[in-house]
Amino acid sequence: MSLVQDTPVDAALSPFGPAVALSCRECGARYDLGAAYSCVECFGPLEVAYAFGTVTREQIEAGPASIWRYQPLLPVAPWAADEPNLAPGLTKLVDARNLAAALGVTGRLWVKDDSGNPTHSFKDRVVAVAQSAARRLGLTTIACASTGNLANAVAAAAARAGQRSVVVIPSNLEAGKTVTTATYGGTLLAVEGSYDDVNRLCSELIGEAITADWGFVNVNLRPYYAEGSKTLGYEVAEQLGWRLPQQVVVPIASGALLTKIDKGFRELVSLGLVEDAPYRVFGAQAAGCSPVAQAFDNGWDAVRPVKPDTIAKSLAIGNPADGPYALDVVRRTGGAIAAVSEEEIVEGIRLLAETEGIFAETAGGVTIATLRRLIADGRIDPTADTVVYNTGDGLKTLDAVAEHVSVTATVRPRLDEALAALVAEGSTTSEGTAS
Amino acid sequence: MSLVQDTPVDAALSPFGPAVALSCRECGARYDLGAAYSCVECFGPLEVAYAFGTVTREQIEAGPASIWRYQPLLPVAPWAADEPNLAPGLTKLVDARNLAAALGVTGRLWVKDDSGNPTHSFKDRVVAVAQSAARRLGLTTIACASTGNLANAVAAAAARAGQRSVVVIPSNLEAGKTVTTATYGGTLLAVEGSYDDVNRLCSELIGEAITADWGFVNVNLRPYYAEGSKTLGYEVAEQLGWRLPQQVVVPIASGALLTKIDKGFRELVSLGLVEDAPYRVFGAQAAGCSPVAQAFDNGWDAVRPVKPDTIAKSLAIGNPADGPYALDVVRRTGGAIAAVSEEEIVEGIRLLAETEGIFAETAGGVTIATLRRLIADGRIDPTADTVVYNTGDGLKTLDAVAEHVSVTATVRPRLDEALAALVAEGSTTSEGTAS
Repeated sequence: MSLVQDTPVDAALSPFGPAVALSCRECGARYDLGAAYSCVECFGPLEVAYAFGTVTREQIEAGPASIWRYQPLLPVAPWAADEPNLAPGLTKLVDARNLAAALGVTGRLWVKDDSGNPTHSFKDRVVAVAQSAARRLGLTTIACASTGNLANAVAAAAARAGQRSVVVIPSNLEAGKTVTTATYGGTLLAVEGSYDDVNRLCSELIGEAITADWGFVNVNLRPYYAEGSKTLGYEVAEQLGWRLPQQVVVPIASGALLTKIDKGFRELVSLGLVEDAPYRVFGAQAAGCSPVAQAFDNGWDAVRPVKPDTIAKSLAIGNPADGPYALDVVRRTGGAIAAVSEEEIVEGIRLLAETEGIFAETAGGVTIATLRRLIADGRIDPTADTVVYNTGDGLKTLDAVAEHVSVTATVRPRLDEALAALVAEGSTTSEGTAS
Repeated sequence: MSLVQDTPVDAALSPFGPAVALSCRECGARYDLGAAYSCVECFGPLEVAYAFGTVTREQIEAGPASIWRYQPLLPVAPWAADEPNLAPGLTKLVDARNLAAALGVTGRLWVKDDSGNPTHSFKDRVVAVAQSAARRLGLTTIACASTGNLANAVAAAAARAGQRSVVVIPSNLEAGKTVTTATYGGTLLAVEGSYDDVNRLCSELIGEAITADWGFVNVNLRPYYAEGSKTLGYEVAEQLGWRLPQQVVVPIASGALLTKIDKGFRELVSLGLVEDAPYRVFGAQAAGCSPVAQAFDNGWDAVRPVKPDTIAKSLAIGNPADGPYALDVVRRTGGAIAAVSEEEIVEGIRLLAETEGIFAETAGGVTIATLRRLIADGRIDPTADTVVYNTGDGLKTLDAVAEHVSVTATVRPRLDEALAALVAEGSTTSEGTAS
């Protein structure tokens, strides 16, 4: 790893596309593109630095129906789309009129529904970019520390590419995440501890000989991995007809997703792909793991670690690496961060399902409930255009809602019993036609 | 309901697009478009009859990224895409090179992966078409008899459209299907019986006053509903660059899906959208519910009902309405139908997950296992191009694989324990770099 000068690249030929270096977010020191994530000068986190060429809307629109249409903006080779991968992205932006009505939003409201990805969470995006980087760097095993969704995404992406995977998870995850990961194959190591324990363990493993050719997508490949989340900013802007939304609500786990959506918006402005216009970024956490919301409320620059205790396991990161940067984005744009109770999370899941037919995982419940809370508090403008991100699928967190819902009635296969049950039901619902 | 003459329609203006009548599949009697499914002359099933206009590839390619791009070929209004719906379809056609290698297929092999639909099964397609018909016919409640996937699709589609839904299911379904359906809201009636009991009960309900404005998507709206499956033929042909595959493998529940894929292919040929070329249609069933496979093996024209007993609940229809028509298609095209054991179903799920990163539900396991069986028997040509349909998502049938997979190891959050577990794992796998 050495300090490097800026060198212009031809993004159409370079193995890392428009990426030119890794750059320290704290001190600005620059390094060759490699499997590194921490500055040797100041220990700050590294991120990808670019020398973008000219990029046009037409060029992007003519690209694949996946995140690879944004290759000119990502640290991946022009041929990334042609290497075995799950082709995530270009998920639906749902015009959520029923949800808007239920929440008293008079502006437009959209749900960016990333449950439509191949393994049904936004993690397919970040893994695809990290997997491409792993190939360029000669790393033949892809690995991760995961709260579950990432485990699914890594194991599936490795299966598709014929690579080995090693997935490390807390041992208390939902069946929807562990059984799925195990079915894709690869090594699945369960750790009796929290996600923060898992993450620390993976950092320790990186020094060991056994992992010399492993790319931990969210540790030593983190700079590339995190860039994959920019596509959730790009897609929303493109799907809105190449403009920025006025308000976005984003769940916060490590905080990387929120900061990268903001980065994606700013890049589109700087490249002239959208008009510069003000937007506000709002963050969503579960009260049972709300270190960034607490820092926001208290006006702190630093984020004090907490011990997570929430059904929103995919957001249960007590020591979020990008928390301070997420705070910066929210404060810079005039947004806010709120945290919601376990009950509100379940209500949020049900509200989204009942109004839009989208069954979100607990993280989506957090985000919808936070949207509702911020509207009630007057901090989100209900007359402005708003995009709320659903990052995962309710099928992976069934237990969270299972005790709150039930069948209307159970009957024997007889017409009289069925009619009696339906008449009783119809008489108790406003939509019912029976009495 | 009255017998009607052919009348030319303008598909760009008609509320049912190019559809002109309902037509009896047995005696050819024709009826006005309505909520009918059975011929008053001979009790044969009704299907939609069309008077297609000119349809071009360019017209379709310029349409929405959903089944609505095929509106000129479906019994729906030109404005169907603009009414609230889940916009299903245009799911991935996955180039399955790893699976091909594992099965000894030297031709090309693709998986049409319909788990990418909004509620993760192909049922979103048929419900969208039925929902459109319900609107045209003034039916304000959408209802269904379901083995689970349809329940999800109906409840979600109704939620999105602000309609009432009534879903009737066997009481022994997987949690992934009942909890999900209940979360979308609507009435959910569980019946202590088989799917065939549920289906019969729904037919009986149709005569009752309480259901006067109900559209049972797979009973009195069945002619429209079933047409939605044609899109699984259209999309494959379009995604192959406007040509027909040489072989397709399709799961059989009622048999409608298989017959409609064939109908879609034939329509594309007759409209000049693809070149006429021979293709063979293969059917897949679980041995625990294989009435159509048994009829095929025995050379019967009729299908003898069976009592289902299989983990492939979404295929567990013991008295399949379209079984005889599926037999006709398979025999006409020179295909075959096979049935696979419960063990083979689980192996099929695991094989697809391990090779392509696609986690299918039990029906997908049936289809992959049948593909494998037919190759081994020499009945599918491994040198020809083949498309295999995965119609649902493994997250809905986790229990089927849960007992067959497990974590590699569980350790405390300590480097020495993690290393020991990983070295042990590495030494037992061919991909391992440790010894």
